[in-house]
Amino acid sequence: MEQDVFDKKIDIIFNPESIAIIGASADPAKPGGTPVSSLVENGFRGNVYPVNPGYEKIGGLKCYPSIEFVPGEVDVAIIAVPANRVVNVLHECARKKVKAVIVLTSGFSEVGNSGREMQEEIVRLTKESGMLLCGPNSQGIFNALNGMSAGFAISKLQTGDDNFKFYGFVSQSGGFGTAIYLMSSETGIGFTYFVSSGNEAGLSFSDYLAYMINDKNTKVVGGYLEGVKDGRKLFHAADMALKNEKPLILIKAGRHAAAAKAAASHTGSLVGSDSVYTSFFHQKAIIRVEGIEELTTVLSVLAAGRPLPKGNRIAIVASSGGSGVLLSDKCVSAGLEVVPFTEITRKKLDEILPSFGSSANPVDTTSQILVEPDLLLKPLKIVLDDTNIDMVIYEHWPGLGRNFTLLDGVIEAANATEKTLMVSMLGSELLGGEEFQYLRTHRVPVARTQDRAVRVLGHVTQYSRRIKEIRAAKDIKMPLKNIDSNRVKRLLEGTKPGQALSESLSKQILLAYGIPLAPEGSAQNLKTALKIAHDIGFPVAIKIDSPDIQHKTDAGGVKLNINTDQELGAAFAEIIENVMKYKPGAHLDGITVQKMLKGGTECIIGVKNDEVFGPTVLFGLGGVFVEALEDFSLRVCPITPLDAREMVSEIRGHRLLTGFRGAPPADREAVYDVILRVSQLAMDFKELKEIDINPLVVFQQGVCAADALMIM
Amino acid sequence: MEQDVFDKKIDIIFNPESIAIIGASADPAKPGGTPVSSLVENGFRGNVYPVNPGYEKIGGLKCYPSIEFVPGEVDVAIIAVPANRVVNVLHECARKKVKAVIVLTSGFSEVGNSGREMQEEIVRLTKESGMLLCGPNSQGIFNALNGMSAGFAISKLQTGDDNFKFYGFVSQSGGFGTAIYLMSSETGIGFTYFVSSGNEAGLSFSDYLAYMINDKNTKVVGGYLEGVKDGRKLFHAADMALKNEKPLILIKAGRHAAAAKAAASHTGSLVGSDSVYTSFFHQKAIIRVEGIEELTTVLSVLAAGRPLPKGNRIAIVASSGGSGVLLSDKCVSAGLEVVPFTEITRKKLDEILPSFGSSANPVDTTSQILVEPDLLLKPLKIVLDDTNIDMVIYEHWPGLGRNFTLLDGVIEAANATEKTLMVSMLGSELLGGEEFQYLRTHRVPVARTQDRAVRVLGHVTQYSRRIKEIRAAKDIKMPLKNIDSNRVKRLLEGTKPGQALSESLSKQILLAYGIPLAPEGSAQNLKTALKIAHDIGFPVAIKIDSPDIQHKTDAGGVKLNINTDQELGAAFAEIIENVMKYKPGAHLDGITVQKMLKGGTECIIGVKNDEVFGPTVLFGLGGVFVEALEDFSLRVCPITPLDAREMVSEIRGHRLLTGFRGAPPADREAVYDVILRVSQLAMDFKELKEIDINPLVVFQQGVCAADALMIM
Repeated sequence: MEQDVFDKKIDIIFNPESIAIIGASADPAKPGGTPVSSLVENGFRGNVYPVNPGYEKIGGLKCYPSIEFVPGEVDVAIIAVPANRVVNVLHECARKKVKAVIVLTSGFSEVGNSGREMQEEIVRLTKESGMLLCGPNSQGIFNALNGMSAGFAISKLQTGDDNFKFYGFVSQSGGFGTAIYLMSSETGIGFTYFVSSGNEAGLSFSDYLAYMINDKNTKVVGGYLEGVKDGRKLFHAADMALKNEKPLILIKAGRHAAAAKAAASHTGSLVGSDSVYTSFFHQKAIIRVEGIEELTTVLSVLAAGRPLPKGNRIAIVASSGGSGVLLSDKCVSAGLEVVPFTEITRKKLDEILPSFGSSANPVDTTSQILVEPDLLLKPLKIVLDDTNIDMVIYEHWPGLGRNFTLLDGVIEAANATEKTLMVSMLGSELLGGEEFQYLRTHRVPVARTQDRAVRVLGHVTQYSRRIKEIRAAKDIKMPLKNIDSNRVKRLLEGTKPGQALSESLSKQILLAYGIPLAPEGSAQNLKTALKIAHDIGFPVAIKIDSPDIQHKTDAGGVKLNINTDQELGAAFAEIIENVMKYKPGAHLDGITVQKMLKGGTECIIGVKNDEVFGPTVLFGLGGVFVEALEDFSLRVCPITPLDAREMVSEIRGHRLLTGFRGAPPADREAVYDVILRVSQLAMDFKELKEIDINPLVVFQQGVCAADALMIM
Repeated sequence: MEQDVFDKKIDIIFNPESIAIIGASADPAKPGGTPVSSLVENGFRGNVYPVNPGYEKIGGLKCYPSIEFVPGEVDVAIIAVPANRVVNVLHECARKKVKAVIVLTSGFSEVGNSGREMQEEIVRLTKESGMLLCGPNSQGIFNALNGMSAGFAISKLQTGDDNFKFYGFVSQSGGFGTAIYLMSSETGIGFTYFVSSGNEAGLSFSDYLAYMINDKNTKVVGGYLEGVKDGRKLFHAADMALKNEKPLILIKAGRHAAAAKAAASHTGSLVGSDSVYTSFFHQKAIIRVEGIEELTTVLSVLAAGRPLPKGNRIAIVASSGGSGVLLSDKCVSAGLEVVPFTEITRKKLDEILPSFGSSANPVDTTSQILVEPDLLLKPLKIVLDDTNIDMVIYEHWPGLGRNFTLLDGVIEAANATEKTLMVSMLGSELLGGEEFQYLRTHRVPVARTQDRAVRVLGHVTQYSRRIKEIRAAKDIKMPLKNIDSNRVKRLLEGTKPGQALSESLSKQILLAYGIPLAPEGSAQNLKTALKIAHDIGFPVAIKIDSPDIQHKTDAGGVKLNINTDQELGAAFAEIIENVMKYKPGAHLDGITVQKMLKGGTECIIGVKNDEVFGPTVLFGLGGVFVEALEDFSLRVCPITPLDAREMVSEIRGHRLLTGFRGAPPADREAVYDVILRVSQLAMDFKELKEIDINPLVVFQQGVCAADALMIM
């Protein structure tokens, strides 16, 4: 691990013993008023100090003219004064040795240059004084476990049994986060902490996330994410969640460049590439959901504290053939398997269903349920017992269960099983609110549409599978022998940022990291070229080797299929002439004489430094695949052996490597090995901004890098 | 048009003057009881004759012991007797000269062999007597315009202004269809007709659809579709809808084979290929929705009778930066463009928004709306006036508008604009039911989630664009000259079903349809082969031409790059020897001597006969693209010039044809022409079950078919 992402110091901002509200108001609707009244109402047990020279008292609490008059220590100060007074107030806080400030005030980097300068001043000041900084432009920090409502927008924290408060959330949008908090709470989703991270001038999204991941009260962590500046920190926080097997669920905006730009101007984060985020989410088993409804539905599954699906085999109990078929479709799309029932199950179902129903999977109870609603409940219990089944989706027709006896049966079934049970409401734009709420408060997973029910089962199944895969993959050992990083250090001596390394230097670096090259040599004259050709055997290819020429073919600097001494002589002269014409004065390191490779499949392995996450590795097939078909896979470094395998298998063209049309399968193990070595190289030498092995030729046995380019 | 899909006779089943219910019951909850009471309650003005020997009267109506005792004519008989009595009852109906029967009874083909035989008997009987047959296993036919509720499950038809009944629906699932009817009705979607088509032993899904498409009262037609047997009829019905510019919206189950099989066993339809259905939907601008909620939301847009979006430029008005960004993302994914506002709009917005809000698109009104809800309404009106904008999505925060004054403003704005306005409810699992209902009944398009709001705007925008495209494409004339179908007729004389045609015969057929071939000739001996080679010039390729050998390369029957007479002689002898070894006794039509083609891009054009839709054309790039990457496009014949263009542009690898990496662009016009000719050939000669041009080589100018195979 490069750095410790979890900073224990942060605890003070979630668990202070005293809070001052600077810019306190007697109007509970104002940002400076909400915390004063709500801290008391939510039962916060620490000291609460309103600060405002205009009041003697607010809501029964003594009000101080400035923070310096507050008796005793102040752990957290909430700042709700106008923007132009924030800096002064922070000076006062620093003098008072306040440990953390939550700046609710808006009007900083989000409004342009003037605000940006003020924000920089705030950063300087808090850094110097060692105060933790949340915001500015935050809507606050909330802890439902100690009644701390240090912000506005949310005034009433969740009450009730702390055991059912399991979920922590960080939002990069105040309003949207508040909507998530309120609407989740209403459907029985219990929170531990909620943070509106604002402009993140001090503490960042990743900091709060890491805190919650480390917190024993929080079982599930989520966030609304537009983008981060500290991708590595987020990477390590996610790694920690993965190790603790604590689910991490994110809504991530910015799939498309336009939205990403809007988000970046909104939060001041980097735009970042959504495809890198997507790869990162996959690597770290992060559940990416599309909106509030999907989020709360995933939470409704995780909230129950029941085991996750052990496999992907699903049973469907529907009240009509049509909706059963439609659900099957959606299940298959979500990676679930609608499997046949056991004989015993079929028999039991046949005994209770009408002859025109179906005891196959999906179960069709038919419209007979209109007169006999119990017909839905009995099959549910039967299929939950089927040993072929990992989870059940049960379709509830709103209206049928208005008397709730049917739902009581569903709740009983959910409590009695070790399998995942999801209730899907049929076509419930309007109806079913009460039933939905009834199930949620009884902690039965429920979704208001087929789509959402199935997508969410897909998410949790994928998460469960992924966790197991990653756990199992720890046993895949691919130790990287023959790596000589000192040699690379020496090879890179004297190179400068921005410099393109020549093909031969790039290849020496690959060699030092144990990556096989094509049989070849570098020649400064024809005589040496001929000697190399005789050593490695005709046919050969020759290529210009110059740091000044990156596109060798365009420069006329490549000749293929050379079979004789004569041909080699002519080609040698010709490419030197071509290159001199193409770029007079280009520095020539020599001419590479390379064995023409027969057969094999051409691949590309590349490294790019992502502005957010740092080094990332790309894999694809050579030729037109990466560029014209955009068929490639991507991972953030460091890459695990599991990642390397997946990178190869997930490209659309992977069949070309597994023995397409009777061809022998390519040596994929050797490809995994090169991917891992390249990842190691990129992590060890972050100064290598780009690495490009194109092509890496993959044979039935072994691989070799036929060309390489690196840029500092 | 091959056939007239609209049968005027069908009208009687929707507009009868008299209805008998055979198996009538006094219990309105029973299938035989519901129509008796509900026909009266719904105000059906024709005669209603309950038939059941067990009753004197039902609900004030005289009840007859059998249909023969009914006085006067019976247009429609609803059959609700037990399965084993249906045949007898139908005999009675035939004698009574009943015009149409709706068989509600289940227990026919859907329960297996015994039922299937009874169903065949029903089909025979109704055909002989000329009675129209709906069902069996139907839940009925409903007409909200004349109060005809001829079935069960739906007892109460929609009342109110007939002008707002605009939508007709056909469902292949009774229960699911009923759910759609009930839930749509509840949210203010007005129906004309609703049909539960049952087992479709007589009238089919396509028949009902065609009726509604032709009906002047029905403005929009929809269906729940699992599969049809008569794909051509569906194709022509869709064509009619397209010509009338009447939107057709379908929920189609069976994306995946497993679900398709469940559907097929459910309705007795053919499994069909979902990719062919998908192509067909695109060709005919059919809107495919994923479920009930998406369906009713599309209807909420179309119901308003307002113009469809004129373009794809959208404005977003959201109450938080976060949800605006998320909406932008979803819009881009749905093919909508989140464009910049005009300067005037920006200025107007800046005047009313807080400094930390955003007057860019998406508009961020900020959490200031909590104290000033009007801040949402003002920007809505401003952006609706922006000339850059075709439609607006307006995010409503449930709870804010509880007093409905805000919503009244939205309704007013919707009524005053010629643009599409969609209200999206923020995170509304539970809240917002009343507001949703309020907007629906005021015919303002509204969706309960961001996803649905955006998907639906995507659908209607795509529909609107597609209609315009198809209208405009009528001007693309690509007359197919030089087609000699008589020659093909002669060429096919004496061929048999299942027979593979030789390469040379296949090529003669292509030639007769004006498709260019590579320069070549057929030789029976080496002398002729040499002559052909000299005529067309070396280098040449030679290939065995035999109807018995389809995989020429596998048989060693192909030699490429032949440069001299000597080489030709050796190759000629060799491939004959290879083929004799590979398949002794194979009939040889000769050896094809073909010019080696230089350059060009290899494509594949194929025809397959789909079991549902008949001839379909496939297009893709040659080599590994179609098979290993599954990169191809598909259309149902006949293909329009617009289809042909789209087939080429929609494959992932299309950049390889438009001038990739500085290569000259390929002659796509020539490709379109070949696709159209192949489509014509497939339509003219349906006995050609498979056509395979692989490769069609596409040059900078022109194309030529280098190999061809046809199967009868």
